[in-house]
Amino acid sequence: MAKDFLNHEFLLETGEAVKIYEEYASKMPIIDFHNHLSPKDIFNNRKFNNLTELWLDGDHYKWRAMRANGIEEKYCTGNASPFEKFMKWAETMPYTLRNPLYHWSHMELRRYFGVTELLNKDSAEKIYATCNELLQQEEFRVSGLLAKMKVEIICTTDDPTDSLEYHRQFAAQKSSLKMFPTFRPDKIYKIDNPTLFNDYLNLLTEASSISINTFDDLMEALKNRVNFFHDHGCRASDYGLETLCHENNDSHKVEDIFFKLRGGKSLLVEEKPIFRSRLQVELSKLYHAKGWVQQFHLGAIRNNNTRKLNELGPDTGFDSIGEFSQISVMQKLFDHLDTSNQLTKTIVYNLNPSDNELFITMASNFNDGSVAGKMQLGSGWWFLDQKDGIEKQLNTLSNMGLLSRFVGMVTDSRSFLSFPRHEYFRRILCNLIGNDIAKGELPNDLPWLGKIVQDICYHNAKKYFNF
Amino acid sequence: MAKDFLNHEFLLETGEAVKIYEEYASKMPIIDFHNHLSPKDIFNNRKFNNLTELWLDGDHYKWRAMRANGIEEKYCTGNASPFEKFMKWAETMPYTLRNPLYHWSHMELRRYFGVTELLNKDSAEKIYATCNELLQQEEFRVSGLLAKMKVEIICTTDDPTDSLEYHRQFAAQKSSLKMFPTFRPDKIYKIDNPTLFNDYLNLLTEASSISINTFDDLMEALKNRVNFFHDHGCRASDYGLETLCHENNDSHKVEDIFFKLRGGKSLLVEEKPIFRSRLQVELSKLYHAKGWVQQFHLGAIRNNNTRKLNELGPDTGFDSIGEFSQISVMQKLFDHLDTSNQLTKTIVYNLNPSDNELFITMASNFNDGSVAGKMQLGSGWWFLDQKDGIEKQLNTLSNMGLLSRFVGMVTDSRSFLSFPRHEYFRRILCNLIGNDIAKGELPNDLPWLGKIVQDICYHNAKKYFNF
Amino acid sequence: MAKDFLNHEFLLETGEAVKIYEEYASKMPIIDFHNHLSPKDIFNNRKFNNLTELWLDGDHYKWRAMRANGIEEKYCTGNASPFEKFMKWAETMPYTLRNPLYHWSHMELRRYFGVTELLNKDSAEKIYATCNELLQQEEFRVSGLLAKMKVEIICTTDDPTDSLEYHRQFAAQKSSLKMFPTFRPDKIYKIDNPTLFNDYLNLLTEASSISINTFDDLMEALKNRVNFFHDHGCRASDYGLETLCHENNDSHKVEDIFFKLRGGKSLLVEEKPIFRSRLQVELSKLYHAKGWVQQFHLGAIRNNNTRKLNELGPDTGFDSIGEFSQISVMQKLFDHLDTSNQLTKTIVYNLNPSDNELFITMASNFNDGSVAGKMQLGSGWWFLDQKDGIEKQLNTLSNMGLLSRFVGMVTDSRSFLSFPRHEYFRRILCNLIGNDIAKGELPNDLPWLGKIVQDICYHNAKKYFNF
Repeated sequence: MAKDFLNHEFLLETGEAVKIYEEYASKMPIIDFHNHLSPKDIFNNRKFNNLTELWLDGDHYKWRAMRANGIEEKYCTGNASPFEKFMKWAETMPYTLRNPLYHWSHMELRRYFGVTELLNKDSAEKIYATCNELLQQEEFRVSGLLAKMKVEIICTTDDPTDSLEYHRQFAAQKSSLKMFPTFRPDKIYKIDNPTLFNDYLNLLTEASSISINTFDDLMEALKNRVNFFHDHGCRASDYGLETLCHENNDSHKVEDIFFKLRGGKSLLVEEKPIFRSRLQVELSKLYHAKGWVQQFHLGAIRNNNTRKLNELGPDTGFDSIGEFSQISVMQKLFDHLDTSNQLTKTIVYNLNPSDNELFITMASNFNDGSVAGKMQLGSGWWFLDQKDGIEKQLNTLSNMGLLSRFVGMVTDSRSFLSFPRHEYFRRILCNLIGNDIAKGELPNDLPWLGKIVQDICYHNAKKYFNF
Repeated sequence: MAKDFLNHEFLLETGEAVKIYEEYASKMPIIDFHNHLSPKDIFNNRKFNNLTELWLDGDHYKWRAMRANGIEEKYCTGNASPFEKFMKWAETMPYTLRNPLYHWSHMELRRYFGVTELLNKDSAEKIYATCNELLQQEEFRVSGLLAKMKVEIICTTDDPTDSLEYHRQFAAQKSSLKMFPTFRPDKIYKIDNPTLFNDYLNLLTEASSISINTFDDLMEALKNRVNFFHDHGCRASDYGLETLCHENNDSHKVEDIFFKLRGGKSLLVEEKPIFRSRLQVELSKLYHAKGWVQQFHLGAIRNNNTRKLNELGPDTGFDSIGEFSQISVMQKLFDHLDTSNQLTKTIVYNLNPSDNELFITMASNFNDGSVAGKMQLGSGWWFLDQKDGIEKQLNTLSNMGLLSRFVGMVTDSRSFLSFPRHEYFRRILCNLIGNDIAKGELPNDLPWLGKIVQDICYHNAKKYFNF
Repeated sequence: MAKDFLNHEFLLETGEAVKIYEEYASKMPIIDFHNHLSPKDIFNNRKFNNLTELWLDGDHYKWRAMRANGIEEKYCTGNASPFEKFMKWAETMPYTLRNPLYHWSHMELRRYFGVTELLNKDSAEKIYATCNELLQQEEFRVSGLLAKMKVEIICTTDDPTDSLEYHRQFAAQKSSLKMFPTFRPDKIYKIDNPTLFNDYLNLLTEASSISINTFDDLMEALKNRVNFFHDHGCRASDYGLETLCHENNDSHKVEDIFFKLRGGKSLLVEEKPIFRSRLQVELSKLYHAKGWVQQFHLGAIRNNNTRKLNELGPDTGFDSIGEFSQISVMQKLFDHLDTSNQLTKTIVYNLNPSDNELFITMASNFNDGSVAGKMQLGSGWWFLDQKDGIEKQLNTLSNMGLLSRFVGMVTDSRSFLSFPRHEYFRRILCNLIGNDIAKGELPNDLPWLGKIVQDICYHNAKKYFNF
């Protein structure tokens, strides 16, 4: 007998898995320590006018699927009406079978709106009406949506020059939900255009009240911002990079390069990695001094479609997985920091699933017994945030590291409807462990294994980040 | 209870999978839109004298397995008698367990000849006699073999200079089987030896009646051939390349290089990619103008064994999977063509299974909503045309693209006995979907999922190629 | 009902798998044709004072897990007492769930000591006492430990300058256990430091009684040692390299480079591969002349943590998987040797699981029908010596080569307690085949498949190495 779609045993293939999920995993609150939610929307407890606004606007996963399904751009990012866009998405839905969108979308309709009907062009109109009606209710504003999912802590992603005004005001409300910023200094690495770079440094000067004439000044200003972020509850940095960067370099050279850049001159190709390498080392030392976690999202190549970039701008669904060599430079950077014992807790997120083994074995070379689970292979992200990708990440981590010390899942999302991904992850995790018990590959000791699962879902992250 | 080997539930692990296979997939005719069958044999409705001639001659998969099994070359490509060769293959058969040859070979004996006995050295003589007797019958000539497998459309692989005489004559017979040519211009990319290249251009001049003195002339001649192929039902091109090629280049440079080459002079290393890049772009634009599909088989390294190449020539079983960087140049070529909106429907076939994710995510960046499933990850080919390889291709495509829009399987074979590979593929596909239903990961809606399966097995290809 | 942990059906999911394992695989003795056991300990029939000495000392797998678990170095490689170290390992044990250490360790406690209790900090003291008591008994000395596992042949790993004194004396005892040396000439490839290199050549001169002034002299000395090893039962060489090495080079250049090196001068970067390439070719020809097997362990990057290297030295758990291009140079080396038909039987061991397909397809290009299974993809080693890694190696080998001709498992270990890894491997192998039978993907013919399994576990290696 086929199981009902998405029933309570969803993704749980054994009785043991069901038990661990229901009695241990499902009870835990959510710490979403990396996402791209809007602090403003959270502070304002934003209300959404319709399901398109909440669910489709800004979701490049859905746009990408729609384009592959032969849907015109007008209905993705274009000026079709919210209703028309929703209808086109509904029409695409059945064609996404076996893609994570099929599971995610139906989980989202169920968990937030109680809609159990399958979405397709026949059911679309009714579902749209039902959800839109619910969105008028108080409990379907942002804080209600998060509460429904038992979200306890959220870490947004923020520029060093950010005033963190919404974080401050939100904290003052003493909500049971905690919102912390994450320090994401990617813009300081963007040195291809000296004008834009100097514009950015001016913002940084403003934010830090430190005038920046030398590389040392720059680091002073950044230290000021790190302190400011720390005071607002920040416990982590994050980067979105193609690869890490590390070259040996001396201080004079770095100052010379900075001077050139600050003077508005373009750098030579070989000068850029010198600047970036030194910047990375100095920032990483600041994170270490604060006891922060540094996170690196590695391997994406962005904006591959020039025609669409010109039409639609970045982050519209034209990014993909790069084929970079990641390991040699990772070794150099971590080894450099470790030599003076200034390598802080680190999470590397890998986008090319063929490299999972390289990542976990290299990162693990820098576990030194100082912190349990110091070096982490981050959860499967972006294209890998689906059943296969999550299983591969968990299995590689198990085989070559310590699954038990894993800090677990993040949504990495811009959407307030993405939190069922934690459920998705937890079910997959419980399934792997339940299957192992059923097969005699793990002892049938639910209290112990249930505790490990709760650690991975919640406690490990709480301890690791010092929340 | 163990299932019987190769029984009707072969590769189908759940009742749902069996149902979808039997009620939906198995009923569909076959469109084999890429193979290397001989148009002459098809037109002549060739008769085979014995099973060795039909089954072993030219089959480098089998030779490779025999060599690994310690069988002398004499019995592979050498001058042993057909009977002796068959006996050595039969002796090797049991040692191929878990290799696709073990499944394929036994399926082929069953589906074409009704032979259900396992092949080994004891059963060999009887099986050889049985099959040879059947091969004397009319229905075991080429057209009968294809009809038995419900083959409806076949696309052969043809040189631009080919007269397509057999295609023309076969079409005139108005057979229910359709045979179309595919435009495979690999030889125009072979510019290492200017003499051979110019010999080839002379053939092209002859075929097109266009004298070729400039690069523009070359493109005129090729356009002539594209039109000619189109008139004979061709709807696709195909390439067998290590990697794609794309460099920016100006027209003058290309003309200079062509002039040098046409004059019989060797090109500098850096000149070759300039010529090839421009040729690719111009040909791809011709395909786009015709609404063709362009196919790229990427990543094979050929003739790795020099001793055997000298003894036996190419295509004798000494090829393997290359470790190329494929993605950066793929982005450049597709992006160049897309910028002027001249990127035609495209299938990329990947030979290194570790790169499946790179291929599908990069190709998908060029879905623009104009055609459902415009950019395709081709089915697992050559070394990947086995259960694991097919499952990986299907799963990656599902996770990172739209399985529902997939154009499905091809034999890519030189043999008239290879068509059970479509059955093999269909069973694997139905098994994945059936398992998902059984587990509650897909809704239990057989009419819908059965239709999707029939699309993948037949309708998608028919629509995509405009057959 | 969940199966009991590690019960007699461990890793065996079907009745067919259980039968093949119990009736065929489990009965076979062990040929461990590659390990790093101490010939001295074997000859001396070493007695171990406590479980820490036997089980933890020198085991960098365990240290690595302990560090990841937040255990201080003092308890890994440091000067804590054996009891304290054991307690810290026991505390870590439950956190290694799903890592191979969890299975291996509990199998080792069961198979050698009959301890079925799970190891953790509560059970640790009792288990330590029990095992230590047993270690006082005669049958828990080295020869007893090996006999308990039915070990029949052991191949150690030895430097060309080794006197093989323990091998000789052990052979004179006419034990039922056979111990053979393996020729591991890695040190001759270490030419970065001319002083150390010349020191080593002096040892080689001493061992061979051949004074070494030219490259030809070097090869004479090595030939002398190959003969000496052969006379002591050696039938294989082994290498631990990042990648293979092959460049075309002429004899004069090699002699010049050698002269420079012998004179104590540092080589230019481009001179090193010339020397190493020629050395490899000449050694490989020597192996071919003797009918030896050459083994290459490829792809490890070692000593990635400089701080720890300085504190603790090499082989202490700071190694990982490299991201090398392996295939092109492998083709060049094997092709060069094959051209003169001097490519001997060869096993390539791959450390990056994403490259399994590249390795097996490239190696198979050099099967020439002279020996069944001439070119081998070695068993999953180091980080890949776990259930997933072993399954991947077996499946890739099956899909793209001949599993039936595989020479099977090795411990590659320094520990006398590692032999249950053969059981682990055999269970996984039997499970794959048993599952295939159960599903109808292989015929239900246990005598035939049982024989194939016994070949892989024992007979293939015996024949391949000519033991």
